[in-house]
Amino acid sequence: MAEQCVIGFDMGGTKMIAAVVDASSRIVGRARERTGAEDGAEAVYERVVAAIRGALEKARKPKIKAIGIAAPGPLDRRRGIIVETPNMGLRKFPIADRLRREFGVPVVLENDVNAGVYGEYKAGAARGYSNVVGIFIGTGIGGGIVLDGRLYIGATGNAGEIGHMIIQTDGALCGCGQHGCVEALASRTAIAKDVAALAGSGASQFVREEVGTDLKGIRSGVLAGAIAKGDRRVRGVVERAAHFVGIAMANCANLLGPEVIVLGGGLLEKIGPMFLKEAERSMREHAMESVLAGVKVVLASLGDDAVPIGVATLAREPRARA
Amino acid sequence: MAEQCVIGFDMGGTKMIAAVVDASSRIVGRARERTGAEDGAEAVYERVVAAIRGALEKARKPKIKAIGIAAPGPLDRRRGIIVETPNMGLRKFPIADRLRREFGVPVVLENDVNAGVYGEYKAGAARGYSNVVGIFIGTGIGGGIVLDGRLYIGATGNAGEIGHMIIQTDGALCGCGQHGCVEALASRTAIAKDVAALAGSGASQFVREEVGTDLKGIRSGVLAGAIAKGDRRVRGVVERAAHFVGIAMANCANLLGPEVIVLGGGLLEKIGPMFLKEAERSMREHAMESVLAGVKVVLASLGDDAVPIGVATLAREPRARA
Repeated sequence: MAEQCVIGFDMGGTKMIAAVVDASSRIVGRARERTGAEDGAEAVYERVVAAIRGALEKARKPKIKAIGIAAPGPLDRRRGIIVETPNMGLRKFPIADRLRREFGVPVVLENDVNAGVYGEYKAGAARGYSNVVGIFIGTGIGGGIVLDGRLYIGATGNAGEIGHMIIQTDGALCGCGQHGCVEALASRTAIAKDVAALAGSGASQFVREEVGTDLKGIRSGVLAGAIAKGDRRVRGVVERAAHFVGIAMANCANLLGPEVIVLGGGLLEKIGPMFLKEAERSMREHAMESVLAGVKVVLASLGDDAVPIGVATLAREPRARA
Repeated sequence: MAEQCVIGFDMGGTKMIAAVVDASSRIVGRARERTGAEDGAEAVYERVVAAIRGALEKARKPKIKAIGIAAPGPLDRRRGIIVETPNMGLRKFPIADRLRREFGVPVVLENDVNAGVYGEYKAGAARGYSNVVGIFIGTGIGGGIVLDGRLYIGATGNAGEIGHMIIQTDGALCGCGQHGCVEALASRTAIAKDVAALAGSGASQFVREEVGTDLKGIRSGVLAGAIAKGDRRVRGVVERAAHFVGIAMANCANLLGPEVIVLGGGLLEKIGPMFLKEAERSMREHAMESVLAGVKVVLASLGDDAVPIGVATLAREPRARA
């Protein structure tokens, strides 16, 4: 079975994780490196290679069959090029070609959120279903879709952009330039804006004392802490965000009739059950009766492993994308 | 080739159309009957049979392979039962069983909008593509999705409900009970509400004189007439509706990355080019750059034939639905 191992690689803006994934979707070796975008593309690439070699070492050097790389978009999947990664110093970088020459195996490139949703489908909370919508909430909101057991990327390769679904025409300004995207209404960034204002006005003493009014300080753990302390104003802001996520979930349910919707990402790792409950309540309020019967809502279960496991599986299965 | 003919049947609230469709998706015989729901289910059923026999007569009695019935939902596809049709007097009606016994061929039941979108995909404006979103605008707004060449109905069989996508949280009241569905903002009914008010206030003299302020009188032809006469207020209302449809199209493009979006239905048959232009402009303003490159927007081309052709083809191809 050793030769059935595949590398799953998660490129992030601050850290990168290489994992050796076996045929049962288990991680049998892993290594991480800082990204260090400030050192330039070649330095980042050298750390990618070092992380892969480190993970292989930990897994006792199995023969590998393929490499899967997950990165934030935009990507050119067909040619294996990272077109642009704002936080990573890679621009028009032919990562697939470089790694193919380095390791002598096929290399597949996929959007990181898609990879995470596919990981949850293959080995996590959505295992056993074939129609899955995944929504990952952190600084932004990302989405991915599995239809009939395959990752759905659409004709353009960019399908699944649930975060930029407009659910409030002329609503809050989004980072993408539009108004009323679910990301603008319900991401941790959107929540932090409101919570910073609560801290500023003194309405949330907890947040004011913990981190002040700096948006960047208002991380998921701070929100979880405030809610645990009984801060009803902060809780209200988070519930409102979950309400909006539920509307996006309802739209997805009406459009796609999935069997399961998986909620994950940094925010959900800290306040998952409470957020899920509100989001599901809102979804059931806003979706059509006829599509709701079959839809379950679950929390992602693989945490940081979802992306490397997902992209490793995509690299293993040439027909995994539709 | 005669034995390759299939019946495509379109059940509507006021009229029903039976068509004999050949293997090239051409209609080679057709007949229509009034629905006459007030006479009760058995009378309606008898007229269904009469229409089918009439169409077969016109096509010189070919041997048929299957029957496809398109009806407004909710349907129980698997058991071939029309669960409920508010305007048609059929309730829990086992139409597939009855027709199977009557004609001795398999019978397939499908939602009428799905059938229409599939017809445009197989023989109309979306022919040659494999990822299609169809939006049909009339009294309500219906949608259908073709992915990888197959009609996508989701795990629940009810996917494609584009009309009830919420794009304006807490917006206008929809017939479904929700607020801010695209149907509530952009259907002919939504347009008629605003135009009736224009007629009432005298802001649209044309509509006031033509049909007064009765919502039911403000049909697509009246809107077309007002616009042709240079009525800028009516035109503004219609453009606003198209703007909202464009937002729903943008959400669909972001989520599904289709190759083509087909706009059809009664409203579009009267003011298609003008409506499409506004809707496409709005879509391109609201969708993500990365998904837009590959998306075309076209007008449906089959008119009333889309539904019978689509459902006939679905009946012919057992694997046509995913």
